Amino acid sequence: MFLMQNDMRTAIVGASGAVGQEFLRVLEERDFPVGELVLFGSSRSAGSYYTFKGQQLQVRQLQHNDDFKDIDLAFVSAGGGTSEEYAGTITKYGTVMIDNSSAFRMDENVPLVVPEVNPADALDRPKGIIANPNCSTIMMVVALKALNDLSKVTNVQVATYQAASGAGAAAMAELEQQYRQVLAGESVTVSKFAHQLAFNLIPHIDIFKPSGYTKEEEKMFYETRKMFHTEDMKVSATCVRVPALRCHSEAIWAETERPLSIEEVYAAFGKAEGLEVLDNPAEKQYPMPLMLSGTDSVYVGRVRKDIANPNVTVFWVVGDQIRKGAALNAVQIAEYLLAHDPVFVGKL
Amino acid sequence: MFLMQNDMRTAIVGASGAVGQEFLRVLEERDFPVGELVLFGSSRSAGSYYTFKGQQLQVRQLQHNDDFKDIDLAFVSAGGGTSEEYAGTITKYGTVMIDNSSAFRMDENVPLVVPEVNPADALDRPKGIIANPNCSTIMMVVALKALNDLSKVTNVQVATYQAASGAGAAAMAELEQQYRQVLAGESVTVSKFAHQLAFNLIPHIDIFKPSGYTKEEEKMFYETRKMFHTEDMKVSATCVRVPALRCHSEAIWAETERPLSIEEVYAAFGKAEGLEVLDNPAEKQYPMPLMLSGTDSVYVGRVRKDIANPNVTVFWVVGDQIRKGAALNAVQIAEYLLAHDPVFVGKL
Repeated sequence: MFLMQNDMRTAIVGASGAVGQEFLRVLEERDFPVGELVLFGSSRSAGSYYTFKGQQLQVRQLQHNDDFKDIDLAFVSAGGGTSEEYAGTITKYGTVMIDNSSAFRMDENVPLVVPEVNPADALDRPKGIIANPNCSTIMMVVALKALNDLSKVTNVQVATYQAASGAGAAAMAELEQQYRQVLAGESVTVSKFAHQLAFNLIPHIDIFKPSGYTKEEEKMFYETRKMFHTEDMKVSATCVRVPALRCHSEAIWAETERPLSIEEVYAAFGKAEGLEVLDNPAEKQYPMPLMLSGTDSVYVGRVRKDIANPNVTVFWVVGDQIRKGAALNAVQIAEYLLAHDPVFVGKL
Repeated sequence: MFLMQNDMRTAIVGASGAVGQEFLRVLEERDFPVGELVLFGSSRSAGSYYTFKGQQLQVRQLQHNDDFKDIDLAFVSAGGGTSEEYAGTITKYGTVMIDNSSAFRMDENVPLVVPEVNPADALDRPKGIIANPNCSTIMMVVALKALNDLSKVTNVQVATYQAASGAGAAAMAELEQQYRQVLAGESVTVSKFAHQLAFNLIPHIDIFKPSGYTKEEEKMFYETRKMFHTEDMKVSATCVRVPALRCHSEAIWAETERPLSIEEVYAAFGKAEGLEVLDNPAEKQYPMPLMLSGTDSVYVGRVRKDIANPNVTVFWVVGDQIRKGAALNAVQIAEYLLAHDPVFVGKL
């Protein structure tokens, strides 16, 4: 592999997963200045080979050793338990860990970052860890940011339509298998979801909390407040798993301190970073999960004012859960560091 | 056929459709006092035979003639255009027309009725027509009624997850066909929906209106107000077609004049007519469309208070679109008439 002397020595932890695989694609597509790339995985996936820029890379087993000593950046997506257990090992020698799990998101010493919303938070990371938010939260806050810049968002209702990918690559495969089984009249395999998802909806993602909300729904509340640095923004979510493959969709009602005209909302959405307006009903154009798989932006459409409350804007967003909801957002955080963080700017 | 002398001479218009077929099942299951049963359809379906209580009945072509002269009750589900065109013919000799289309729902001389909400409205029908509401509206109002009896509901946000059946029997078949095609790697037939629905979501049901809402979304606003006899209840809906087969689901935020405790909400839902509480997260029990197909009740679960506003209750409802959303609700209207309407009470 051709190495620029100062390119980033990069690791992917959880390389065999849906998000790990997407890291390989996103880093290559965006020509991220990867020097050495080291893949880590569980004992189960250790030894597997994956291709990056034409090279075959073998997955190493993640262990408590000094493997991260020469690594600048580690993209970690191997579940909350692994992140908690290995954070010390990964960051011991100064490696910056960008973590896709929920383990550290609400840790006050760990910044939680969506680059379109609060990029500079990534510069202050006492533990050497930056957390990537929940995927549904990411889609929502990219759109909320545009409104919040016009007038403070105070109150949000959001109903999600979350794809199988949020439960991992095996869950996506299980959904396809379930359809094959249903259509063949066979009994249906249910292992990655609480119930059959084919031809169904499951209003249950992550565990239930004493509030009656699920943990997924509470994430949308707490993570959003953390990123906007406010306790005045309240998010009430109903999170539902739907039989889409890899894009999450959301119906959102957002209340702002002052009423916004539909014209200023469109203007704000139109110029917002990371957001694409797709809202041409006459041509049957609006965001849909099937058609937007593999794209980078969050798409917004069905924009209108609430019937009851002039301070409420209603809209519909769709974004690729594996890209912007996970791998892409983490890589964008790293790109921000390379451009703005003194630790990295000197290196390139 | 064994005829009770005073049994209802009944017609089904649109007998070959998904709702028409459900009328046959519902009337038989509930032992509705059908005397003669006459099936009507388009020229395309005329001549087909369907079974009712073991008898083969042949579909007659709907025409402008005196075929309804001896009919007491006509269940009509053949689309808005047919209802408008044939309403005069159907009601000319006093036949009560219970119409499943949207043609007359907002006509001030036509009552719009969900028996759990406003049954007595059915008794005053200057045109001889009673309208059956939009299917998504029916599911929602059965639950809202229970809250509204505790404290006036003022403001509702609802995100729907609507099954293929809402677009008819051919649309259900098309959804299954699309999955077969996708899984076989074939090109996908798209005829009954605006886009491919398999592995997708379509935030577009019925036509778009100048407000930016679809007509389906506006129905949930206007029809709800009409049934609750108020202009103070505002419903902001986002209606989305999902790849479920025949149950509609809805995430609802309902604001009441006074804050309701979760205990009184459960008590109200628990005793509400037509509503079943299915809300046991510890056992992974909550309403899901696949499991509730073919049932009569509206099911409510995921009940909790809004995070931001103590006056808002959050919940999730699921109901069979073809039964409670269409055929069953219409038959329940007829049952109410038989029990309470002087025109019918004397007959039985």
